[in-house]
Amino acid sequence: MAGKLTANSYGKSAVRLTKVVRNGSRHELFEIDAAINLEGDFTACYEKGDNRNVVATDTIKNTVYVVGKEKSFATVEQFAIILAEHFIATYPQVTKANVELQQSSWRRIAIDGKPHDYAFTSDGPQHRCVRVTWSRGANPVIVGGVRGLLVLKTTASEWRDFHIDRYRTLKDASDRILATQIDADWAFNATAKEFDSHYESISGAILRTFATQHSLGVQQTLQQMGEAALDACGAIDSISFELPNQHRIPFNLEPFGLKFEHDIFVATDEPYGLIKGTITREGK
Amino acid sequence: MAGKLTANSYGKSAVRLTKVVRNGSRHELFEIDAAINLEGDFTACYEKGDNRNVVATDTIKNTVYVVGKEKSFATVEQFAIILAEHFIATYPQVTKANVELQQSSWRRIAIDGKPHDYAFTSDGPQHRCVRVTWSRGANPVIVGGVRGLLVLKTTASEWRDFHIDRYRTLKDASDRILATQIDADWAFNATAKEFDSHYESISGAILRTFATQHSLGVQQTLQQMGEAALDACGAIDSISFELPNQHRIPFNLEPFGLKFEHDIFVATDEPYGLIKGTITREGK
Amino acid sequence: MAGKLTANSYGKSAVRLTKVVRNGSRHELFEIDAAINLEGDFTACYEKGDNRNVVATDTIKNTVYVVGKEKSFATVEQFAIILAEHFIATYPQVTKANVELQQSSWRRIAIDGKPHDYAFTSDGPQHRCVRVTWSRGANPVIVGGVRGLLVLKTTASEWRDFHIDRYRTLKDASDRILATQIDADWAFNATAKEFDSHYESISGAILRTFATQHSLGVQQTLQQMGEAALDACGAIDSISFELPNQHRIPFNLEPFGLKFEHDIFVATDEPYGLIKGTITREGK
Amino acid sequence: MAGKLTANSYGKSAVRLTKVVRNGSRHELFEIDAAINLEGDFTACYEKGDNRNVVATDTIKNTVYVVGKEKSFATVEQFAIILAEHFIATYPQVTKANVELQQSSWRRIAIDGKPHDYAFTSDGPQHRCVRVTWSRGANPVIVGGVRGLLVLKTTASEWRDFHIDRYRTLKDASDRILATQIDADWAFNATAKEFDSHYESISGAILRTFATQHSLGVQQTLQQMGEAALDACGAIDSISFELPNQHRIPFNLEPFGLKFEHDIFVATDEPYGLIKGTITREGK
Repeated sequence: MAGKLTANSYGKSAVRLTKVVRNGSRHELFEIDAAINLEGDFTACYEKGDNRNVVATDTIKNTVYVVGKEKSFATVEQFAIILAEHFIATYPQVTKANVELQQSSWRRIAIDGKPHDYAFTSDGPQHRCVRVTWSRGANPVIVGGVRGLLVLKTTASEWRDFHIDRYRTLKDASDRILATQIDADWAFNATAKEFDSHYESISGAILRTFATQHSLGVQQTLQQMGEAALDACGAIDSISFELPNQHRIPFNLEPFGLKFEHDIFVATDEPYGLIKGTITREGK
Repeated sequence: MAGKLTANSYGKSAVRLTKVVRNGSRHELFEIDAAINLEGDFTACYEKGDNRNVVATDTIKNTVYVVGKEKSFATVEQFAIILAEHFIATYPQVTKANVELQQSSWRRIAIDGKPHDYAFTSDGPQHRCVRVTWSRGANPVIVGGVRGLLVLKTTASEWRDFHIDRYRTLKDASDRILATQIDADWAFNATAKEFDSHYESISGAILRTFATQHSLGVQQTLQQMGEAALDACGAIDSISFELPNQHRIPFNLEPFGLKFEHDIFVATDEPYGLIKGTITREGK
Repeated sequence: MAGKLTANSYGKSAVRLTKVVRNGSRHELFEIDAAINLEGDFTACYEKGDNRNVVATDTIKNTVYVVGKEKSFATVEQFAIILAEHFIATYPQVTKANVELQQSSWRRIAIDGKPHDYAFTSDGPQHRCVRVTWSRGANPVIVGGVRGLLVLKTTASEWRDFHIDRYRTLKDASDRILATQIDADWAFNATAKEFDSHYESISGAILRTFATQHSLGVQQTLQQMGEAALDACGAIDSISFELPNQHRIPFNLEPFGLKFEHDIFVATDEPYGLIKGTITREGK
Repeated sequence: MAGKLTANSYGKSAVRLTKVVRNGSRHELFEIDAAINLEGDFTACYEKGDNRNVVATDTIKNTVYVVGKEKSFATVEQFAIILAEHFIATYPQVTKANVELQQSSWRRIAIDGKPHDYAFTSDGPQHRCVRVTWSRGANPVIVGGVRGLLVLKTTASEWRDFHIDRYRTLKDASDRILATQIDADWAFNATAKEFDSHYESISGAILRTFATQHSLGVQQTLQQMGEAALDACGAIDSISFELPNQHRIPFNLEPFGLKFEHDIFVATDEPYGLIKGTITREGK
C-alpha cells in the first residue's frame, strides 16, 4: 500500500430547509441552506469499506429536517448551535461537527405600508450565515457573517499614490466609483445571545461606514468597517472581510470628442481585485 | 451551393453601462445591461465576407456608451427608445433595431432613516427591463417588464382537483407554500409616458395581488396578477408572465414519528413547473 | 374584469432522467434534461381556478420517467417523439405538445485504449438537444441541435473592412483568434431516421468547416458551416445558428516596450457579439 | 480605535490570459485563469490609507500578461512558479506570493483522424490547476490538481451496512450509480519536473481506478484513487480529494405497477454528499 489516510471528513451540502412558524395568522419564514461536515473515527470506511461507523450523508440530511421540526429557534445562529450539539451528543464516533448555514433574505410585502402576515419578497441577494464548529469536549466556536452584501458609492472614494514601477499603467484617481460585494465573518464571544440584534448592529455599522467614511482604498475601507463593527457590537471579538473590487472603469470618451465627467463607466465582473483582512478587538 | 441565407441578425450583448448623474451632491445611478440586435441589408457579409455594410458589434458597444453620455434620460425605457431610434436614424442599411435593457435594482443606504445621496445597496435580485423593437417606417414597439421578482407566501394557496390518471401521484393540497420568480412583460400603448410611475403601479399591483388574493393554482394567480396590472396602469394593453413554480415539498416526517403541520419543507430548484400566460385588455 | 387570457401554456422543466440500458455487461447511458410544455383547453384553470383539465406538472414529471421506463429508444430524438406523441394521444384536452430534451455528453473511460463497459467521463460541455412540437392532427416538427459546442482557432480568421463612422474605434484585423460556443438547431425532414448518424454528420461538418475554412467574419463562417451541414446530411432542410463572439482581445503591450505578435490576449466573456442566421436548403 | 489589523492579503482574481505559441504552422494554446494573492508589509494602507507600498491589483493583472509574454513555459505549473518568483524577487515588501492558475481543457479538432494545427474544441469541463505558495526565503510549495473531472459508473458500486439509528431512512444498496465531480490537489516533491507527464499519470490513475475498482463507498474509492495516484507518480507525496456525491436516485416506479431494474433514476445536484480525504505516501 502506497499511502495512508492522513486527513478526512465528510457530510452533506446544499440541504435546503424551509421552516414556517405559525404564530396565529402571522408566519415566520426561515429559508436555510445547510452544509454539515463531520470528523471522527471513520478510517475504516476509507481503508476497508467498513461503513458501520458512518452516519450516511442521507441520514445527516434527514437530521436537518427532523431537528428543524423538533427544536424551536428564533435565529439561524441558534439552529446551527443546536445542530452541532446534536451531532456531538448523538454519535460518539464524531469528534468534531461543523455546521454552516446560509439564510435567504426575505422581507414582508408591504400592503398600504403594512408588512403582510405571510407574503414575502426578496430583500436582496445577501445571505446571513453562520458557522459553528464544535469539537468534542470544547466550547463551540460560533462565527456569524454575511455573504454577497452589494454596495456601491459613486464618489468619496480615491485610489492614488500606490506603488510605481514598470508594470503599473493605472493612473491615480481622486474620485472613483467604489463597488463591492461584502463577505464578512465575525467571531462571537461568550456574551453573544441576541443574534438578530447583533446582526443588525454589525451590518448596520458596515453599511453606515461604507456610505459615510471617505475611502482612500478598499483596504482602508475594510479597516474602517471592521472597527465600526467592533464598536457597534460587543458580542464579537474579531471580524474578517473578503472584498472583491468590482471595478467600474471610466469609458474612454476621447475618440468621440467627449469628456469624461465621472459619469460614464464600464461595469465589469472580471478581473476583480480581492482584498482580505481581519480586524481584532484590542486585547483579544 | 447547398443553401441560402433565409434569416439573419446580429448585435452585441452584455454591454454593461454604469451612468452617474450628479445633481449637485445627490447622485442618480443607472446600471444597465444592454443587448442590441440589428436586422437589415447584411447578406453580403454572410455570403461573401463583404463586411462594408456591417456596423461592427464593437461599434455598437461604443454607441451605447456614447449615446448614454450625450443624451439625457430619466428611465431605462427612455434610454431604450433613444438607442433604437439612433440605430434606425444613423444606418440606412438597418431595417429593424431591437434594444433590450435590464436595469439592476439599487436603493439608497438609509442613514438615520434618511436615504444617502450617493451610497447604494442592492434592492433585490429583480431587474427592471425593457425591449424596444423599431422597424423602419413603423412606430416603435415598447415592452416593459421585470425579471426575477421573487415572491413566496406560506399559506392561502391550494392545488387540488386536477386531472386524475395513471401518471398522477401528487395528492390534493388545500394549504401549500407558493413561491415563484416572476418574469413579466407588458406592452405599452401610446399613452405611456411616466415610466417610473408605470413600473411602480404594475409591480405594486402584482405584489399586492400575489399577497392578498387566495390562490387555487399558479395559473389562476397569473390571471389575477395580470388583471390587476391592467387595472392599475392604463398605459399598458397586455401583460405576459412566465412563472416558474419553485416547489417547497413537505418533508416526509412519518418515518420519524412526527406530524407534518405545514412547517417543514424541502426547498427545490428543479424540476420546476413553468406556467405562462398573456392577459390582454378587453377590446385590444 | 379588465382583461382576458389570450395565450397560455404550462409544463415542467428541468426534469432530469438518467436511464441505463444493460446489454449484458455493456451499459448504455442516457442523461437527459427534459422540458415539457402543453397547450390546449386550459382556460378554466386560469380564469376560475377550475383545475380538472389540468395534467399537473408533477404528473408530467412522472410521465417522463414512466415512459422512459416503458419505451425503448436508441436516441434522444426518438425519446422526444415518443413523449410528444404520448401527451397528444393520452389527453384530448391537449392540442399541442412541446418536448425539449438536452442530453449530457459522456464518453467511455478508455482503459488501455479500450472503452470501458460502464464507466464514463465527460465528453465536453456541449449538449445534444432536440425539440419536438406536435400539434394535434398534424405531423410532428422535429428540430435537432447542439448547445454549447466550444470552438477556437488561433489564426485563419480576419475581421476588416467593416463600416466606418464616428462610433467605430476597432481597427481592421487580418489575423485574430476566433472563438465561439455554437448553438445550432436543424430542422429534420421526413427522411430523418438514423439520428446518431445525422448528429455525427452535422456536428462533424460544423467542426471541419470551422477548422479548415478561412474566416472573414463570424457571419461568413456561419454561412459556411450551415452549407456544410446541409451538404453532409440530407435529412435536414435548414439549420440555424446563434454564435456568441467570445472575444480574445490583444493585450496592449506597448506601455511595457513589448510587441504584440498574435500571442498575448485577454480572454473575455462580456460584452460579446451575437451573430444569428438560418441557412435553408435551396428549393425548401 | 476599537481594533487592529491581525491578518491581511490582497490581489487580483479572474485574470484571464490566452497565450498562443506559434511553432511554425502548429500552434500551442494556453487559456489560463489566474488569481494572485500577496502578503507582506501592507498595514499602512489599511490603517492610514497610505498606499505607497501597494502594488495595485491592476499592476498585478498587467504582470500576468507581461510575464506571460516575456517568459517561455511549457506547462501551467511552470508559469505559476515563474509568476510567484517574480513577485517575491521584484517587491521587497512582499513576504509571500500565492499564485493559483486554472487551465481550460482544449483538444485539437480531428480532421480525417489527424489533430488540426490551430483549431480546438473543448476537451471537457475539467480544469487542470496549480497553486504555488512562495514565502520569502523558503522553497516554493507547488500543488497541482484538477477541478471538475466528471465521472460516472452505472454499476460496481455499493453503499450498505452504514450506521443505523432513528434518523436513517436510506436502505442498503448493493448496486447503485456512482457519480462525482473530482476535485483533487497533489503536493509535488522536489523531483517534480515533467508536469505534463505527471498530470497524465495522476489523472490516468484516478480514472482507471474509478472505472475498474469495485466501490463500497465514496470514501473507499477516494482512498483507492489516492493510493493509485501515489503509485503512478513518484513526484507527489500526497493527494487530497473533494468528492461531491452527485446522487442518482432510483425513481419510485411502484405507483405505476413497474419494477425498478437499476434502469430509471432521478439525476440530482442537491443536496449532495461531500467526501474529503488526504492520502499521504508512507514515510512522508
